[in-house]
Amino acid sequence: MASSATNHGEKATWVLHAPRPPGPWREFMEFSGDQETRPMDILPSSPKHFKQPSTASLAVETPTAEEKLDLEKNSNPVQRSEWVLNGPEPPGLWHELMDSVRETASCCGNKYSSLKNQPALKSVVSIQREIFPILVWGRSYNISKFKHDLLAGLTIASLCIPQSIGYATLAKLDPQYGLYTSVVPPLIYAVMGTSREIAIGPVAVVSLLLPSMIQKLQDPGADPIAYTKLVLTATFFTGIFQASFGLFRLGFLVDFLSHAAIVGFVAGAAIIIGLQQLKGLLGITHFPTNTDVISVMEAVWTSFRHPWSPHNFILGCSFLCFILISRYLGKKNKKLFWLPAVAPLLSVILSTLIVYLTRGDKHGIKIIKHIKDGLNPSSVNLLELNGPYVGDVAKVGLIVALVALTEAIAVGRSFSSIKGYHMDGNKEMMAMGFMNIVGSFTSCYVATGSFSRTAVNYSAGCETPVSNIVMAITVIISLQFLTKLLYYTPTAILASIILSALPGLVDLDKMYKIWKVDKLDFLACIGAFFGVLFASVEIGLLVAVTISFTKIILISIRPGTETLGKLPGSEMFCDTAQYPMAVKIPGVMIIRVKSALFCFANANFVKERIVRWITAQKAADTKGQTKDKEAIHLVILDMSNLINIDTSGIATLEELQKNLISEGIELAVANPRWQVIHKLKLSNFVGKIGGRVFMTVGEAVDASFGGKIATAC
Amino acid sequence: MASSATNHGEKATWVLHAPRPPGPWREFMEFSGDQETRPMDILPSSPKHFKQPSTASLAVETPTAEEKLDLEKNSNPVQRSEWVLNGPEPPGLWHELMDSVRETASCCGNKYSSLKNQPALKSVVSIQREIFPILVWGRSYNISKFKHDLLAGLTIASLCIPQSIGYATLAKLDPQYGLYTSVVPPLIYAVMGTSREIAIGPVAVVSLLLPSMIQKLQDPGADPIAYTKLVLTATFFTGIFQASFGLFRLGFLVDFLSHAAIVGFVAGAAIIIGLQQLKGLLGITHFPTNTDVISVMEAVWTSFRHPWSPHNFILGCSFLCFILISRYLGKKNKKLFWLPAVAPLLSVILSTLIVYLTRGDKHGIKIIKHIKDGLNPSSVNLLELNGPYVGDVAKVGLIVALVALTEAIAVGRSFSSIKGYHMDGNKEMMAMGFMNIVGSFTSCYVATGSFSRTAVNYSAGCETPVSNIVMAITVIISLQFLTKLLYYTPTAILASIILSALPGLVDLDKMYKIWKVDKLDFLACIGAFFGVLFASVEIGLLVAVTISFTKIILISIRPGTETLGKLPGSEMFCDTAQYPMAVKIPGVMIIRVKSALFCFANANFVKERIVRWITAQKAADTKGQTKDKEAIHLVILDMSNLINIDTSGIATLEELQKNLISEGIELAVANPRWQVIHKLKLSNFVGKIGGRVFMTVGEAVDASFGGKIATAC
Repeated sequence: MASSATNHGEKATWVLHAPRPPGPWREFMEFSGDQETRPMDILPSSPKHFKQPSTASLAVETPTAEEKLDLEKNSNPVQRSEWVLNGPEPPGLWHELMDSVRETASCCGNKYSSLKNQPALKSVVSIQREIFPILVWGRSYNISKFKHDLLAGLTIASLCIPQSIGYATLAKLDPQYGLYTSVVPPLIYAVMGTSREIAIGPVAVVSLLLPSMIQKLQDPGADPIAYTKLVLTATFFTGIFQASFGLFRLGFLVDFLSHAAIVGFVAGAAIIIGLQQLKGLLGITHFPTNTDVISVMEAVWTSFRHPWSPHNFILGCSFLCFILISRYLGKKNKKLFWLPAVAPLLSVILSTLIVYLTRGDKHGIKIIKHIKDGLNPSSVNLLELNGPYVGDVAKVGLIVALVALTEAIAVGRSFSSIKGYHMDGNKEMMAMGFMNIVGSFTSCYVATGSFSRTAVNYSAGCETPVSNIVMAITVIISLQFLTKLLYYTPTAILASIILSALPGLVDLDKMYKIWKVDKLDFLACIGAFFGVLFASVEIGLLVAVTISFTKIILISIRPGTETLGKLPGSEMFCDTAQYPMAVKIPGVMIIRVKSALFCFANANFVKERIVRWITAQKAADTKGQTKDKEAIHLVILDMSNLINIDTSGIATLEELQKNLISEGIELAVANPRWQVIHKLKLSNFVGKIGGRVFMTVGEAVDASFGGKIATAC
Repeated sequence: MASSATNHGEKATWVLHAPRPPGPWREFMEFSGDQETRPMDILPSSPKHFKQPSTASLAVETPTAEEKLDLEKNSNPVQRSEWVLNGPEPPGLWHELMDSVRETASCCGNKYSSLKNQPALKSVVSIQREIFPILVWGRSYNISKFKHDLLAGLTIASLCIPQSIGYATLAKLDPQYGLYTSVVPPLIYAVMGTSREIAIGPVAVVSLLLPSMIQKLQDPGADPIAYTKLVLTATFFTGIFQASFGLFRLGFLVDFLSHAAIVGFVAGAAIIIGLQQLKGLLGITHFPTNTDVISVMEAVWTSFRHPWSPHNFILGCSFLCFILISRYLGKKNKKLFWLPAVAPLLSVILSTLIVYLTRGDKHGIKIIKHIKDGLNPSSVNLLELNGPYVGDVAKVGLIVALVALTEAIAVGRSFSSIKGYHMDGNKEMMAMGFMNIVGSFTSCYVATGSFSRTAVNYSAGCETPVSNIVMAITVIISLQFLTKLLYYTPTAILASIILSALPGLVDLDKMYKIWKVDKLDFLACIGAFFGVLFASVEIGLLVAVTISFTKIILISIRPGTETLGKLPGSEMFCDTAQYPMAVKIPGVMIIRVKSALFCFANANFVKERIVRWITAQKAADTKGQTKDKEAIHLVILDMSNLINIDTSGIATLEELQKNLISEGIELAVANPRWQVIHKLKLSNFVGKIGGRVFMTVGEAVDASFGGKIATAC
């Protein structure tokens, strides 16, 4: 442990020589304006702003330095109780609202405000740099960095090409759309993104989510072109939502999917994606559109009873084994990091050769056949912005936007915190949004940061987003010249490539940790998991969000109370359950509410409990069981953890006060916080309890005993 | 102010002679079992349970008295930090659940357990007394109390008869149903209820709520009998729900309608009820079924353009003025308290006479005509428990049950707290439920405690629920012999009686107080008000509940932070905004999160803010602006107000720790609470921050400076 005990003498000296506080005006200015000099710029060696205590603007609100010194030496409990009662008013609702708006805007605000003194040209350059981080890191880019990026880019390209085709199939689109999506979005992200490791392209969860929602509007089997149009429109909306989240600094929306919910959701989605691959692996022709486990297993069971060709299965499974073994080797030997990355491409090449040489397609092996070659065609005229489904598609776009951002930001953050640089969440959203909007104009579906490829990119030693550019160029070359070579590629191989990426998504270890630490979080996790598995992808998400928020409400309004006692050898009062060594004060009941709110939902319950305790105690007194013990004469409510109170809470306090008075017991309040004391004053509750508001529980107890002794004398 | 300062020497002596704490086992036994001896039974003069410190069962968990003394004298910050880290485990989720179940059941549990040693007959008597409080207060009932109750009962009967007929019309039932409802429920309540003042019968808000929901299922104009059947079925369900709330101790459900929401809802409902009276007052025949302001005003506007008879209006208005003037006189002169109470009955008699003598019904004055006489007929065969609407009617029953209970318990509580006795919420619910179930068998619709009649009952000097019995008997007599006399009573009088009761329900003063104290509460209040006014009664309720709960979520997850400083002359660290005199410690950033949860929804926002501050500080340092100031070397998170943390919160703390390490800054945690420190230990976060967990912020600061000095030497 880094701490070491200091003796009390030393502490006392230090207490006496503590720096003097700034006045409220100065505090306010620091809080609202210049962020760069707050909140730690006051030093005992330079108490600058106390040298002019009579400056007009300061003198109004600030006590003079002499008064302060006086105050510091002689501050006693009574005076401190005055501090509690006569503090400044807390900011109102409107003020708080404006503050939070200002803060969410402050990141760029601060930066732009520093531009004011610069010439126009320079400030244009600065704003450009804000929007395009490539202008910042590009200036220090060199050949050595490029070598790393080239290697990493080629590695992720070899993983990306087969994965893109597979994910496009999962999204029920033609294979070339997956490749298109690996061209335009990575190029745009490389220019606008702030993460150095994220590999952009189609990902498994989004490729599952899109068709599961859109096929309810348009069956991809019946009219593939109409379906594709809706997917592209959804991509457009996804981009719009993502960009506006970034523009309006709504990054916190991504946080509404809790860690636990994401773990459960991704695990469930991985299993569903795995089940979808059974179609390719077993060569099933009639596959259900519902994604839940039961429908899929029924379809698989039905297909087994018909004659089926085992060739697809054997081919897929053997290459799945090959990929998994190569991954195992890559993990064992760090030098072979490239092996798991190129294994999928190798599988594609080998299996294509096998099928071509053995003419396996004639023996029941399903092959990709034709992939349209050529670069991304324009898809502006495919967007249906005034079709009948535009509202539903926009809703799909919103859900996909949140899920895609959650995945990208989670993966980006985990790598930026390893490398120790700051990833700007709002800028990321802008970049993602812009790349999806442009993507929807150029035949791409929703792209985001991929878990698996980002990890490969990192371990291949990427330095900058240039690796994404290298990848995109490689995919362009493939699209132009190599799609014809994929004619004989068996679909079973695509299934095994996707399957091989799934085990990493089912994180049993993390689930166990969540279970160990927080049972309610685990409930959200398992709710999302089973929701995805047995109902549908959206219901899984809905279950997770609902459980997460219900948990917040439950914990916030739980009417728990704890009895406090004094810790031996200190002035602190603590929960006697947490600290069994804490000592209860005879004749005084010290109670703290275990929630941040004393409100309509819990206030009455707490009141009833206190009254019940007191009645029970009185009954015991009359029976003579506790004759020799001192009866309760004071109830202290420690309000130190109450953030807020509402009118129902205050009304309940007043009732409690009346009840206690009728039993001859006093009520005191200790350490109310800003909003709470303000409201208690406004509703005149402070007057009703005779001003018994104290800074600490200890002072409330002292005051009570002091008073008692005084009246006894 | 009652407090007075004690000197420090006295405090110190008192601290040293503080009583010694009980062991954890003893604490546990006190917490879970015998409520009568907790939580205040430890006195310095009788430390009984420390005289046998070696009793086997205690010795396991309790340190010996000598150890304790030792601990108390020598406790230092390092030791206290150990206390934080090595505290007992908090109760698990299951344990907490069982505890809360046990507590809700404890009220009767305790009472019944004390019966175990009594003979069988006696315990049966005791249980009877629990269920029928009349057996308790009945024994001390005497003639002097009866005189008061007789007077009060007759007074409320005279108010009740015209109001009941009016409310039945509001509920779109035949007038006699209102009178039936004033017979059976009051009699049952008198036997089972715990409040002494509540006057039971039909009330305005419920009489509005019932038709507004049921007429969607069955139009009362088209088939009045089918409509009445549904209302009686809804009454049955209301009773079932209320009784089960009482039986399963779900009294807290009533608290879910916050004080503010009720004020707004009742005010809105009063205006709607007033508008409904325009039908009777203006003699409009075509009145809309929708209750919102716009529909009603349209109907009124349309009716004005047709020829209309002003006789109804003149008659109604003049008697409304009479009632209001009599109320004013009653308020001015306390001796005339009976005047406002009998004014409605007087108006009925007078107006009936006028119409009878002038044959006003021939000149367009609408009269009640026939009221079925005779006592409540049985309605068991009218209940439709397996009809097509049973599900919808049950839902109506649930909503009405909650609203009716809220009104009854609010009015009961306000008078019981004036008289200073305890009203048992769960027993009240049982009584209300039972009276409505029996009511639904005897042609009554939903009865509950009425605001206006309870106030009259109180000021007429009622002593016990016998006043309800007197009132019921009076209504029985009227039903048997006097209904024929009401043939010529004009409907406009009923409208004016209801109108006269409404101004008390629109409490502008309370609304202003809510606005002053809590703006968000006011939003719930005004939401309920406008919801009722412009949409419908249920939507008003829904809006109020939604706003109330959204507010809880918002406050709970608001990512606010506050910077702490040391209060001069004490060891306390407080919010520098609330206490401008608090001193910031140079080189240390002390932060407290302004919410009870550090969770997925706010953790990341807080982390980003801290990182931004530190980056800004660093940038300032490099620019040389703060050259002479000490750079931040320690961030202390004061966790004293965090009730809980979730896995996302812990993951964010880990990220924050990584970010801070890369800047060369240490992270320390002060005063984590039970659940929090438990989870931090489980997830090994304590190890990751090098065990820097302290009891207080002060100790964390001391430890940091101590360490610094040590390394410098």
